[in-house]
Amino acid sequence: MTKLFDLLGKQTLFFDGAMGTLLQEIGMAPGEFPESWNLSRPDDIKSIHRAYLEAGCHILKTNTFGGNRVKMAEAGLSVEEVVKAGVSIAKEAAKGFENRFVALDMGPTGKLMEPLGELSFDEAYEAFKEMAIAGEGAGADLCLIETMSDTYETKAAVLAVKENTSLPVFVTMIFDEQGKLLTGGDIPAAVAMLEGLGVDALGFNCGAGPEQMGKLLPQLLDCTCLPVIVNPNAGLPVSVNGKTVFNVNPTEFAHEMEKIGKMGAWMLGGCCGTTPEHLKATVERCGGIEPKPLPEPCRTVVSSYAKAVELGEVSVIVGERINPTGKKRFKEALRENDLDYILREGITQQQNGAHILDVNVGLPEIDESAVMAAVVPKLQGVVDLPLQIDTTNIEAMERALRIYNGKAMVNSVNGKAESMEAVFPLVQKYGGVVVALTIDEEGIPETAEGRLKIAEKIVKTAGRYGIHKRDIIVDALTMTISSGPDSALVTLKAMELIKKELGVKTILGVSNVSFGLPKREIVNSAFYLLALEHGLDAAIINPNAEAMMESYFAYRALAAKDPQCGNYIARYGGQDSAPKTQAAGRLSL
Amino acid sequence: MTKLFDLLGKQTLFFDGAMGTLLQEIGMAPGEFPESWNLSRPDDIKSIHRAYLEAGCHILKTNTFGGNRVKMAEAGLSVEEVVKAGVSIAKEAAKGFENRFVALDMGPTGKLMEPLGELSFDEAYEAFKEMAIAGEGAGADLCLIETMSDTYETKAAVLAVKENTSLPVFVTMIFDEQGKLLTGGDIPAAVAMLEGLGVDALGFNCGAGPEQMGKLLPQLLDCTCLPVIVNPNAGLPVSVNGKTVFNVNPTEFAHEMEKIGKMGAWMLGGCCGTTPEHLKATVERCGGIEPKPLPEPCRTVVSSYAKAVELGEVSVIVGERINPTGKKRFKEALRENDLDYILREGITQQQNGAHILDVNVGLPEIDESAVMAAVVPKLQGVVDLPLQIDTTNIEAMERALRIYNGKAMVNSVNGKAESMEAVFPLVQKYGGVVVALTIDEEGIPETAEGRLKIAEKIVKTAGRYGIHKRDIIVDALTMTISSGPDSALVTLKAMELIKKELGVKTILGVSNVSFGLPKREIVNSAFYLLALEHGLDAAIINPNAEAMMESYFAYRALAAKDPQCGNYIARYGGQDSAPKTQAAGRLSL
Ligand SMILES: [Zn+2]
Ligand SMILES: [Zn+2]
Ligand SMILES: [Zn+2]
Repeated sequence: MTKLFDLLGKQTLFFDGAMGTLLQEIGMAPGEFPESWNLSRPDDIKSIHRAYLEAGCHILKTNTFGGNRVKMAEAGLSVEEVVKAGVSIAKEAAKGFENRFVALDMGPTGKLMEPLGELSFDEAYEAFKEMAIAGEGAGADLCLIETMSDTYETKAAVLAVKENTSLPVFVTMIFDEQGKLLTGGDIPAAVAMLEGLGVDALGFNCGAGPEQMGKLLPQLLDCTCLPVIVNPNAGLPVSVNGKTVFNVNPTEFAHEMEKIGKMGAWMLGGCCGTTPEHLKATVERCGGIEPKPLPEPCRTVVSSYAKAVELGEVSVIVGERINPTGKKRFKEALRENDLDYILREGITQQQNGAHILDVNVGLPEIDESAVMAAVVPKLQGVVDLPLQIDTTNIEAMERALRIYNGKAMVNSVNGKAESMEAVFPLVQKYGGVVVALTIDEEGIPETAEGRLKIAEKIVKTAGRYGIHKRDIIVDALTMTISSGPDSALVTLKAMELIKKELGVKTILGVSNVSFGLPKREIVNSAFYLLALEHGLDAAIINPNAEAMMESYFAYRALAAKDPQCGNYIARYGGQDSAPKTQAAGRLSL
Repeated sequence: MTKLFDLLGKQTLFFDGAMGTLLQEIGMAPGEFPESWNLSRPDDIKSIHRAYLEAGCHILKTNTFGGNRVKMAEAGLSVEEVVKAGVSIAKEAAKGFENRFVALDMGPTGKLMEPLGELSFDEAYEAFKEMAIAGEGAGADLCLIETMSDTYETKAAVLAVKENTSLPVFVTMIFDEQGKLLTGGDIPAAVAMLEGLGVDALGFNCGAGPEQMGKLLPQLLDCTCLPVIVNPNAGLPVSVNGKTVFNVNPTEFAHEMEKIGKMGAWMLGGCCGTTPEHLKATVERCGGIEPKPLPEPCRTVVSSYAKAVELGEVSVIVGERINPTGKKRFKEALRENDLDYILREGITQQQNGAHILDVNVGLPEIDESAVMAAVVPKLQGVVDLPLQIDTTNIEAMERALRIYNGKAMVNSVNGKAESMEAVFPLVQKYGGVVVALTIDEEGIPETAEGRLKIAEKIVKTAGRYGIHKRDIIVDALTMTISSGPDSALVTLKAMELIKKELGVKTILGVSNVSFGLPKREIVNSAFYLLALEHGLDAAIINPNAEAMMESYFAYRALAAKDPQCGNYIARYGGQDSAPKTQAAGRLSL
């Protein structure tokens, strides 16, 4: 596939347009499986492909959109046969053309995933795997996972392709006009997950015309560093005589696509309702658009199925309560497999203002890996916050990262070779923002400079695994001030130094600072405030502790990060507002 | 008196020794007033002076120690006659000697001051004034106020001399071996007040031998920038056959005085039990000691009668509760002259941890000046904290500063010419650390740089009044964040900038930051913590508000300013120590 990547970014590339629309025109009956035509009417498929090639399209989508075992079982067809035929027809069609590519097309299974529906993650994975293997075997140049409306199913598809083939993976998803997936996810959430999984290009398809997609495109371009694909329908669907039609004509379509290309999409094509005429007009109008350079990856983002959380813009709160350490009741719940208890801890923390939830279910006497695999999807069923997978058990970490719906925070890696060798491959494969602790084989350095050195080593090693530093968030390690008077100062200094020198984000487990002291929240909330002032990007705290949240909201109001003190007033305005302290009126000169 | 100041600091100077001891030896009966000899046996006095002059002493103490109207009324003698005779005899004696000076000697009245005793501040003042006028009239070269054991009586004496004569004023006080005055004051407190009043030299006399004074001397040298006098007794008193004797012999005395001179005392002499032989030996042994240069004034100190509070070393808490602004009950108390209410506010704040108490009794409908004059001494009767005299009424300010026992904080001056012209003369005369608000005729600048400019102007103008910048503490003005989002940031920036550029201390009225917001203490305590982190030297806060004190104690513990978290644990250790938040055990790798 060097050829496709040689062209990508050098010139605007064109996907083809609709297949189904054209098949209906030449007689496909309602309810018929389009994929069956690969076997029954290959020449018709081939001539549609040829029409798109003649229109100037570079990438053909094979007629395999629904060619997965879930749908094909219903059709009574063999996945392997349908897929191989679909790829072969396209390759046949492309013979004699230069710089044309065949994308194995995979649409959704059509079933809802657990827990909403019945399709398990593994079943989805297997379905896509089967297609991918067949498609690669038949000579596809890449795989296009398209029209996806569920990030979770998309993740299964991406992993299936990446783990079983060496095909490049392009993904396009279907958003509504508000930029939401059917499952509620938004663009930044989807992008975070897809970039984390290492797809090669991503974008929009179907569900809207070029005008609507053009409106959503800036949001997409703002949050991705990957090449963008835009494959709109020929407008919004209109019902004419009981038939669904799309009535943006080729000229109008091409006109809108030109704007999209100029905004920065590298690949343009069509979906429902588009025809070779639409694509021909688009190629003519947009063929000369020079692709804009891609932005450098810089933002540090984690996501759930629903939303993305960027670390750094506003300091982020990672709720620390799902953790059995020192909690008798929590340990009991784990031993008794009382997941409801854990889910309630999650819900409470979200209600109290956490942005991310730490999930630690480590207890020597339980099967951490199994519990982790049970807790993660259930938690995602009740809270829509991104999770931080917190474990030293690498098996548990991998199981959690695999089934997590989104791009997780991973806690943690450290400067020991053993840790980096185990954790980095998982982060590279599943995506994630990994918490890097400044400790290594020689322990925790007493100085800020020593901790910087370890952080530097971790960032460098991560780079060798293809992990960008934006996906590393360094924890300079909070030690208790009851053991050493300087320990808080050293931590703050290390945090600032690491942030400045390495340009990475920072995180701290705040409450360790007060270990061994009475009334720990007094020290914790003060240390949290100082850390915020020194630029901390994320704090692992107890969001149920009001003093901690007070530090957070007061800091934001004081530091001009809360316009009109709006969040502060929203949180505290309803409470007794009689000030205990009066202004001493010292300015009344 | 240029002559004395020409020598001072160029060579070690010598006071003479005891007078009373020698008079007893030549027949003064127990109970007899030594001052009566000025009239009855002037030649005996004169020959004692001559003996000291011949021993090499530069400064004679006139035989007027008890020559004040309180004691002379008892003796049936005229103050004017006794003092004039005393000065004249010494001047006579010194004729023919070069570089010899006559110090009008004034000891304490012997009566306790109000409220402990019956002597009012004004009565003490009048007694010393009478002596000072007579002494200057008779040709004294300076005034030595000595053997003082009460700062308040000392203040009356210093003001009496400075306001009614142009004599230089030297003051020596009598401390016990623990460095305490009879009234409980310590050395830094006494020094702060005396330096504030503008005395020319200060030191120790009587009460102890040179060995004991030598042990206290480093403390004195550490806290004063003035020339130091040490006039010890000839050892500690011993009772021999019912007679009090001092048995450090001249050689031993001179040996100890040499250490004292080398430590940095510029003027050496003797008190009870010392003789011309002691002084002769001392002059011989110490005459060659070269005076050390005086330290630059740098510390910012206020004091009560009991103790000094240095601003800056540890950030200082100024209790804001004695202020009627916005307090209905307080206003009632003022209108009803219910001083007990105010005193209780003072006591509570001291108990809760204030270091200084703001005193504001301004209410349009009351005689602020009279109330201030009543409140200040009463407050000093129940709390031993330094006070901050807080008023815009210049008459009230002067009355308060005059009768205040110590060196007060003065709130406030600002950059308006009118304000500086009214306030600076008072600060110059009575001493004090003055709060300088960064506002002037054009209002409060919106930028940190604008506030710096005003602070600069204030410091410069103060200098023309002889007020050192160490006695200016700049308030960069806290504005509420509810009106402007940047206001807290600007205040913190201005505070840091002013501190750095001008080298002055800083203070803030913290609670203004939250004006107009709900749950103000949340914002106040957070802003307080940020201000501490940015180097705030003093904060005007409500010490009864636990959240504020929590910021204070937590900050100190976190910033390594509370060894072993001792103060933190002392304050919070007794309370429920079950931490609401558990350490998440994140370091247990
Ligand atoms: Zn479509
Ligand atoms: Zn004496
Ligand atoms: Zn700072």
